[in-house]
This record gives sequence, structure tokens and C-alpha cells, in this order.
Amino acid sequence: MAFLSKEIGGYFLDIPKFKRLPRHIAIIPDGNRRWALNRGLEKHEGYKNGITPGLEVYDICEKIGISEITFFGFTQDNTKRPQIQRKAFVDACIKSVQEISKRDAEILVIGNTNSDVFPEELLVYTNRVKVGKGKIKINFLINYGWYWDLMYAFDNSTDSKRTIENIASADIPRIDLLIRWGGRCRLSGMLPVQTVYSDIYVIDEMWPDFKPEHLFNALEFYQDQDITLGG
Amino acid sequence: MAFLSKEIGGYFLDIPKFKRLPRHIAIIPDGNRRWALNRGLEKHEGYKNGITPGLEVYDICEKIGISEITFFGFTQDNTKRPQIQRKAFVDACIKSVQEISKRDAEILVIGNTNSDVFPEELLVYTNRVKVGKGKIKINFLINYGWYWDLMYAFDNSTDSKRTIENIASADIPRIDLLIRWGGRCRLSGMLPVQTVYSDIYVIDEMWPDFKPEHLFNALEFYQDQDITLGG
Repeated sequence: MAFLSKEIGGYFLDIPKFKRLPRHIAIIPDGNRRWALNRGLEKHEGYKNGITPGLEVYDICEKIGISEITFFGFTQDNTKRPQIQRKAFVDACIKSVQEISKRDAEILVIGNTNSDVFPEELLVYTNRVKVGKGKIKINFLINYGWYWDLMYAFDNSTDSKRTIENIASADIPRIDLLIRWGGRCRLSGMLPVQTVYSDIYVIDEMWPDFKPEHLFNALEFYQDQDITLGG
Repeated sequence: MAFLSKEIGGYFLDIPKFKRLPRHIAIIPDGNRRWALNRGLEKHEGYKNGITPGLEVYDICEKIGISEITFFGFTQDNTKRPQIQRKAFVDACIKSVQEISKRDAEILVIGNTNSDVFPEELLVYTNRVKVGKGKIKINFLINYGWYWDLMYAFDNSTDSKRTIENIASADIPRIDLLIRWGGRCRLSGMLPVQTVYSDIYVIDEMWPDFKPEHLFNALEFYQDQDITLGG
């Protein structure tokens, strides 16, 4: 396996050379609360440690030429958690988007804005915003719900536009590779239409314990998959 | 771990005792063609070796008290394969439903019947049919398509019925545990609405190499999952 040496976040990292890359990667950054408990912290203290890993994923993907990343920020299901946790994960999501906005990206936030839980700081990103030199598309699911997403096509359309192509997340294309941290092998309601053919790769480590090798292992898994789109 | 000794298919099998069972299991019986190639057979010869494993899954699930199983028969995507393969997997699906119809079950077939590919032998099962003593619900996806399933709610409904609750597969409930043979970790378009929270368990062996232990391992995996329904 050949390596490329790239400067990332001020240091050089050897990145494997892949035979074939996914166009669009989804990230489920699970395990923040378990990570906190394992360290004797309170559950809500995990989330702020999930910001830097997202930026590292961005840095590596931008360097190797991934076209699009979608981050599972939080769902409407998640908002049933205790208030202190909710504040912590909403704050971590806001901070994550703000940090990406200082880099090169085309940012899009998808989620139900008709709710007090949706942070007003992110309203500006509900239409795609180019920051810096643009190039890589970065999507965040913020107060997203699978049911809300699908029902949007029924509720907010005229008769002629009532089609599955008009779901709320219509601007997010098919996901090639979905990577989930925290050991669980499930979608947790993430983008049911875009994940119908996704290859799923699960990393046992918790999201705040992110290492570049996790992402490399997922990309190595993906390059050997037989892509049939259900055929 | 305690074991129950049960008579299954004429012999006694030690079945582990599980702390907690899934209500509804989905089965993706993948790897028939690779199994055939590995044995020096032609690809299409694999499918007929996938019938007995399905009956074994039925037997075990019926004995341990699973309420419902949904088998991924074939999809509209699959029908793009060469004619000789298509005939082989359609025949294997017909035979599988016919074998289950000799047992105790409540059989339902879901798929697009407006197509020559849909086998007319199975039309009778497009409304649920009780056979023998009934009890366990057995669903088969036959000429199923995720897009067809979702679009059904838009196309075949009056205004007031246009809701995601009226998808074509509306009679199939949420899937708790999805088990896929053949090593791939993806849904391949299986029931996007019912799988949003499913725990997925992948078995590397090919479907015709089914062993009861595969199912037991999946059930052991499931009993230790934290079920949050996205919360």
C-alpha cells in the first residue's frame, strides 16, 4: 500500500492510497456519552469532545478528494434526552458548523426548523452556503427526523410535486459509505432514502476516541466492496 | 447459557435460552451465487440450495417463539440479472412459499404484482393467508422495490390517505433484528421505513451454508443491544 504524506492540522499524516473512493460518506458519531461515563465524567460532558474528531474527518476527506460528507448531528428522537444533554449536543453541533465555516466547504444544514430546538445560529445554512474556496460539500443533520423527512414530500408540496424526490433531504444524494463509531450496527433513522444501498462500516471505539486509522480502515473496507446498487 | 432441546426437522437441536428476543426478524439470504461459484457450479445453481435454510430458520423461530419473520425474496433491482438466474431465484422463492404453506404460519407476500416477473402462484398470498395453526407471521418480499414501496403511498391513495403510513409494505411492522448472510453490511433496498432502527447482524458465510449457530449468534448479539429507537 502506497502512502501520501499530507499536512493536516499542522502535522504530517501518512494517508494510504486507495484504489477507489466513495463519492459521499455519512458519519454517525456515536458513543459520546459512553466515552464520558468510561472516564468518570457525566454523560453530557462527552459531546464537546466530539467536535475535534469531526474537523479531523473533514481535513482528511478534503485532502484525499472526497466530494461530500454528511454528519449525523442530532435527530428529533435525540431531543427526548434530558435537557442538560440536549444543550450539550446542540452546542457541539453549532460549534462544529461554525468551525467548518472557517474552512473551505459548501455547507448545508437539513432539519426541522419549525421547533425551538433548532438553533437559530444555523438557519443561514438551510440553503447551501459556500465558505472559503468551497469545493467539498459538508451536510449536517440538525433536528432531523426520518418521518419528518419523508412526510415533507406529502405535506409541503402541490399535487404535481408529491413524489419521493421532494423529501426534505432531497438536496442530499445517495450515500456510498456510512461509517458509525461506538460499535452499534444500525442507522438510527439516518436518511432512509439515501442509505438504501449504502455500505455500512462500524468502528467499535467511541467517537471522541477518533483516530485517522478508523477512517482509513473504513475506506479500505469500501474499496473492496462489490457495488451493485441492489442489482 | 441454558439450552432447550427441541425436535426440529426430525432431529433434536440444542437451542440456547435468550434473555430477550426480537419480535420481528428480517432475513437477507445473500451469497447464493458466490456459494455456487465456490463449488465450481454456475451462478444460477446456487438459488435452489437456499430453500432448505429458509425452512430451518422458520423451524427454529417457530419453536423459540419469534412472532414474525420477513424474508428478502427478490427485488426489482435483482430482476436486471440474466434470465437464467432470474428464473432460478423466482423458482426458489415460489418453492419456499409453497413449503411454508404446508406448515403453521400466516403468510403475506409483498411486491409489485403489475409485472410479468411476479409469479402468479403467489398472487393468493398478497392478502395474508393463515395456513395450518397460523401463529407465526411469515412475510416474503417478491418483486419488491424500495422506490415502488414508497411511491405507492403517493400514487395509489386519495388525498386524505397520502401519508407514509400507506406505503405498499404498510402491513409489515418495524424490524427489530436484520440478519444478512454473505458478508455484506448493507440493506440493498430492503424496507427503508421498517429498518430505520433495526439492529443489523452480518454473517460471513453464504446463505446455502446456513447453520443454526448463525441464527443463535445473531440472537445473542441482539439480546445485548441497547434498544433506544433512536432516542
